[in-house]
Amino acid sequence: MPASPIRKLVPFAEAAKKKGITIYHLNIGQPDIETPPEILAAVRNSDFKILEYSHSAGNESYRKKLVEYYQSVNINVDHNEIMVTTGGSEAILFGFMSCLDAGDEVIIPEPFYANYNGFAVSAGIHIKPITSNIETGFALPSIEEFEQLITDKTKAILICNPNNPTGYLYSREELEVLKAIIKKHNLYLFSDEAYREFCYEGEHFSAMQLEGAEDNVILMDTISKRYSACGARIGTLVTHNQEVLQTALKFAQARLSPPGFGQILGEAAVDLPSDYFEGIKAEYRLRRDTIVKRLNNIPGVFCPNPGGAFYVMASLSIDDADIFCQWLLNSFEYNGATVMLAPGTGFYGTEGLGKSEVRIAYVLNVEAIHKAMDCLEKALEVYPGRIENQ
Amino acid sequence: MPASPIRKLVPFAEAAKKKGITIYHLNIGQPDIETPPEILAAVRNSDFKILEYSHSAGNESYRKKLVEYYQSVNINVDHNEIMVTTGGSEAILFGFMSCLDAGDEVIIPEPFYANYNGFAVSAGIHIKPITSNIETGFALPSIEEFEQLITDKTKAILICNPNNPTGYLYSREELEVLKAIIKKHNLYLFSDEAYREFCYEGEHFSAMQLEGAEDNVILMDTISKRYSACGARIGTLVTHNQEVLQTALKFAQARLSPPGFGQILGEAAVDLPSDYFEGIKAEYRLRRDTIVKRLNNIPGVFCPNPGGAFYVMASLSIDDADIFCQWLLNSFEYNGATVMLAPGTGFYGTEGLGKSEVRIAYVLNVEAIHKAMDCLEKALEVYPGRIENQ
Repeated sequence: MPASPIRKLVPFAEAAKKKGITIYHLNIGQPDIETPPEILAAVRNSDFKILEYSHSAGNESYRKKLVEYYQSVNINVDHNEIMVTTGGSEAILFGFMSCLDAGDEVIIPEPFYANYNGFAVSAGIHIKPITSNIETGFALPSIEEFEQLITDKTKAILICNPNNPTGYLYSREELEVLKAIIKKHNLYLFSDEAYREFCYEGEHFSAMQLEGAEDNVILMDTISKRYSACGARIGTLVTHNQEVLQTALKFAQARLSPPGFGQILGEAAVDLPSDYFEGIKAEYRLRRDTIVKRLNNIPGVFCPNPGGAFYVMASLSIDDADIFCQWLLNSFEYNGATVMLAPGTGFYGTEGLGKSEVRIAYVLNVEAIHKAMDCLEKALEVYPGRIENQ
Repeated sequence: MPASPIRKLVPFAEAAKKKGITIYHLNIGQPDIETPPEILAAVRNSDFKILEYSHSAGNESYRKKLVEYYQSVNINVDHNEIMVTTGGSEAILFGFMSCLDAGDEVIIPEPFYANYNGFAVSAGIHIKPITSNIETGFALPSIEEFEQLITDKTKAILICNPNNPTGYLYSREELEVLKAIIKKHNLYLFSDEAYREFCYEGEHFSAMQLEGAEDNVILMDTISKRYSACGARIGTLVTHNQEVLQTALKFAQARLSPPGFGQILGEAAVDLPSDYFEGIKAEYRLRRDTIVKRLNNIPGVFCPNPGGAFYVMASLSIDDADIFCQWLLNSFEYNGATVMLAPGTGFYGTEGLGKSEVRIAYVLNVEAIHKAMDCLEKALEVYPGRIENQ
């Protein structure tokens, strides 16, 4: 079981804090946005007397409410096609375990969310990375590249849309390309849409909207980022494929039920006013614009302008991202502060890739982002492992 | 992945309810005791603004509080030896995945908690059942019987103490026998102590109290039954073995964190008055005494008097427990009511065992238990598959 690439840096961050250094945390996807008070109030105002197990697939009232939510984003499902899970994490794990046997393979465009590795180990399956490139902004690789990787062990393709860590927003056309591949080779398409609402260039097109791929598409979803409710541990596994859902239900029954309080919060969230996301999206868009501009103004830095989520991947003029990120915490400060980033290597399945890249989560306000970019700019001037004239 | 043996009966129960029949649910471990209002209030009075991820091992404040709880039950651990999990379910799964490789074996006395099967499938490991007998009240099998089952694939023994489904409370002497086996054969001892407080005959002796087996013993625990807080989904994995805990932490990091609200509730529970369990234990003891007496007064029924938990296993004069339990829902009623039981077969790993046995959870008050026993007594008189003069 591999250790989380970001968690490895935590002891160094703790040591820096002990020295009195301010750390701008651009390394994790914990939003600084407040959880909507209305949905916290739904939990705080609850009046049940026994905190019972819920249905293993989640409370029926919540699943029925989720039908409304999905309709609002143009995904038509019945409440019997929705399973409430313990975070998006469990939706991914159940998806892997329900659709693949031990030793089977799932193709995932890299860089990808590092925790997919952990779920793959847990499920006994293998991830086959297919490389997307920073030069194209991490667009979907070609059909030919996918087909070169498909073996008789390949059972699924997984995309995260919009993407963590690249922020890339897959177009409808790219989804149609994926559909052609999964139909031709009889594969599942896992679609992790944790960041669905966070799109800044055009509309989100969900894999669930692909016509004619109803039995292939498995949606893995979570309320964590959507409502800044990461600690609720509430997600969903959604599919029209009843066979997959019934298998997932057996895993769900073994772990009895998803969290009770979190389901109350999630159910209340569906009733948030329809303009709830507008202010939040405007804030994130401003942060993205700020960070992309600042990054590209630093000599030797390249950062594509991503269409969604709240991450960017940037390439820096450095020798080794792991060493650089550790050095930032160990050996650098500027005006009593430094910045914590996620090394790009942790997001690649292919050994050796991502060494000049970092992932930056724009989960701080614009003022803090400017200060963090001041730090990064200075750091890149003095870092001993910098590479000139890249 | 096997379906839950109890869940298979749910459609028949729903059909009976639609016909207007009252069902006494003695089939599941959902206590009817109220969750302590103080601990629900801790959640309802919380005033944080962002529901963030917690530490993957659980909030430090909660783990430090749990040290106090474990001290109160004579288990000495440090907060760095405790990992907060998403229910006892996840503690079991993490224990399996951290200590065993795919294909390895764990020996479990049968009858055992049916969901162990699901976690074993998830972890890719095999359960080797060792049969305990109703005639001895389901006491621990002998050393010789254990040693006959140990192969080079055997990595662990799991006990549930007090036991679900038998209610059996293992003695200190039996724990010492287990210690001798695990030390001799270098095995882990998983101890599921979900029902620790529910002991009616003598004191509970925890596997964590075994001296000299600190690196072998892994405690799997949960607040679900302890505080009637099943929906909180909060458990713990506790061990002095740091290597195991660090491996489990990697799985914990992949799933990010345990539920936030549930941790607040769990932390408050440690401060419940020390006499909290007394009233509850008195109630369960009365129920146990009632149900054991009523059962043994039915011709052809044998029910040992269990020392703990809130279950009994009884043998009935029937041909097939699965057919009987379904028949109770499908084809029987007495005064407009029937009873739902869990067929014994679902708790055995050995094919063919448990066919005359049922598990009964005494999670209803004494009046309801009497009515349920009236139903069962009548049912056994008229059941077409009854066996005479057993």
